[in-house]
Amino acid sequence: MPNWLLPENIADVLPSEARKIEDLRRLILDNFRLHGYELVMPPMLEYLESLLAGAGQDTEGMTFKLVDQLSGRTLGVRADMTTQVARIDAHLLNRASLTRLCYAGSVLRTLPQGLHATREPFQIGAEIYGHAGLEADAEIQHLALTSLALAGITQVRLDLCHVGILRAIIAEDATAQKDEMALVKLLEAKDTPGLQVMSADYAPITREALLALPNLYGDITVLDRARQVLPALPAIASALDQLQALAEAAGPECVTIDLADLRGYHYESGAIFGAYVPGLPNALVRGGRYDHVGEAFGRSRPATGFSMDLRELARLMPGAQRKLAIRAPWSTEAGLKEKLQECIVALRKAGEIVIQNLPGHENDQDEFNCDRAVVLENGHWVIKNLD
Amino acid sequence: MPNWLLPENIADVLPSEARKIEDLRRLILDNFRLHGYELVMPPMLEYLESLLAGAGQDTEGMTFKLVDQLSGRTLGVRADMTTQVARIDAHLLNRASLTRLCYAGSVLRTLPQGLHATREPFQIGAEIYGHAGLEADAEIQHLALTSLALAGITQVRLDLCHVGILRAIIAEDATAQKDEMALVKLLEAKDTPGLQVMSADYAPITREALLALPNLYGDITVLDRARQVLPALPAIASALDQLQALAEAAGPECVTIDLADLRGYHYESGAIFGAYVPGLPNALVRGGRYDHVGEAFGRSRPATGFSMDLRELARLMPGAQRKLAIRAPWSTEAGLKEKLQECIVALRKAGEIVIQNLPGHENDQDEFNCDRAVVLENGHWVIKNLD
Repeated sequence: MPNWLLPENIADVLPSEARKIEDLRRLILDNFRLHGYELVMPPMLEYLESLLAGAGQDTEGMTFKLVDQLSGRTLGVRADMTTQVARIDAHLLNRASLTRLCYAGSVLRTLPQGLHATREPFQIGAEIYGHAGLEADAEIQHLALTSLALAGITQVRLDLCHVGILRAIIAEDATAQKDEMALVKLLEAKDTPGLQVMSADYAPITREALLALPNLYGDITVLDRARQVLPALPAIASALDQLQALAEAAGPECVTIDLADLRGYHYESGAIFGAYVPGLPNALVRGGRYDHVGEAFGRSRPATGFSMDLRELARLMPGAQRKLAIRAPWSTEAGLKEKLQECIVALRKAGEIVIQNLPGHENDQDEFNCDRAVVLENGHWVIKNLD
Repeated sequence: MPNWLLPENIADVLPSEARKIEDLRRLILDNFRLHGYELVMPPMLEYLESLLAGAGQDTEGMTFKLVDQLSGRTLGVRADMTTQVARIDAHLLNRASLTRLCYAGSVLRTLPQGLHATREPFQIGAEIYGHAGLEADAEIQHLALTSLALAGITQVRLDLCHVGILRAIIAEDATAQKDEMALVKLLEAKDTPGLQVMSADYAPITREALLALPNLYGDITVLDRARQVLPALPAIASALDQLQALAEAAGPECVTIDLADLRGYHYESGAIFGAYVPGLPNALVRGGRYDHVGEAFGRSRPATGFSMDLRELARLMPGAQRKLAIRAPWSTEAGLKEKLQECIVALRKAGEIVIQNLPGHENDQDEFNCDRAVVLENGHWVIKNLD
């Protein structure tokens, strides 16, 4: 097997794509910063137990495991950064006040999450710790949407759901409770026949509510339908009110309610959301409230956040135009050489890309489009337009 | 053991340090770009054989190994990115022309390279492929020095050496040749007694030259001494001429010649360099020519480059000042709320960091220093200075 071959679902990022990712990374991190989010950089590697603590248990199957020569213990390569950032908030920073954090970095996964999915997503995201109110959820959703807008992604649909609804529906039904995770899977797949089979022995009120959920999908008016169809429980009423407020904050015209979109159900604790774009079946952004995320690290406090894969986002962007650059010659002549160097330094200081030809090489780098050149005219270095 | 504990020589990067690293990363990548270097992003993970091919064999002991569930083959987590970038040049891009590439990313190492060294350096570097002339070496050294200058690192000493000198000295001496790697270790340590013992049976001319190398250390005049002391071989004369030209290009006042500083000897092929700063025993930057680096990937062509650890660089920088920011209140009052939002959006568009207080929380984020606040005055939102 040739040694330049890469493992499946692992790829190099070549210049034109790398530049898009780098530009997006800066745009989005700058947007986080303008909103007061502080950047943290958790390590690629931790003790496996730390990575899998609390909400991290979901990543068990996708986490690469290694042996640490220093401690003899098992290490994991991070498959997700959210638990790491929760650990930083809970243990390292341990502030009494509200804390806004953001992060960006590669994560690795043992298996791709889809046929053509990369095993090395570039995860970027933001979190608010310490505020239980809906204002934090609204801010996080706003931050996610403005970040997509900066990336030039329009026609975004914000999908809202709330894990409190299913919890309330099954809270009083012991039979349904023990099927909780199976129910979540059926609901996510909107598998009504499956739900009918599974709920056959449940209390009629539970059954009816469960079978209603896959159809509670559509614009903001779905919330009114839900109020009529679902049991009149305080937890359900509160969840629907929260979704109403969040939909209004985001602008109802771009919101879809989907009460069966329960991805992340077992570690989420309140309103959850996904951001979708036309033509892409999976959510581009996933986020929501998961108040107990810090508990595994000794400090449970309110938390809400989102994350996305920058590589996927970059793929949606139009191909970047090749950047304009200036070509400069090589000179060895005393007097002229120094003047040329001065000229090049001044151009670069002004933000121009200047590519100096090394002797014997024409410059034809793919990413740059040299539309000008530094040339010698009457003993002076001047800039000329190229055709 | 508490689950917030990190493995030895692995650390989180907290906000103030993360911001320094992020700022440096941008400054240096922008500098590369202004010089016409194209960014590539090789993966964190490859087949072990690819990572250890050619010059990568040096990283064998420090590379974490994993099993790939998809292929059943052994994967490695990159411990160094230079071989990966050489693979991209040789196989993926495969351009006929001169190619300038740059890269930035985390690498992982099974063991720290020093007592307090991190096992997760953030490697950033640049390479020129396809030009055998000294101009490429000079450009690479210039790029390394201007990058350090952008980071505010002054008093940099550029250490020059050339692997051709030792190779020429031992070329005709079969006994010395079989000790080659041991000789490199002794020379790197400037271990003259060790060299005396090891070279006891060598030809007198070899022995004398080897024992001279540890003392050929100092300013540019060392090159003249070397011309007198070392054997008059064409390869040695050429190497010394190259060092002379590179020292003059960099400015002789900041250059040290050290003909025993042979780190990377066995994969380097020409002039090599390190950049040192006062108070730090190890080189901050390492670079040099390694023309056969692409050979393992089917395409050997001239190559020269450098890399450094951005985390180490960030540690040398003065602590960043806390950024100035504007505090904004939360408003729910119709009419006022929208006006406040407009005001905040406009401020952020103008590049101001605006931190909106969520109800019930004072804002006291550590990284930001709120020197102004948005306040309501006579029904208008205005900006006031804070004490």
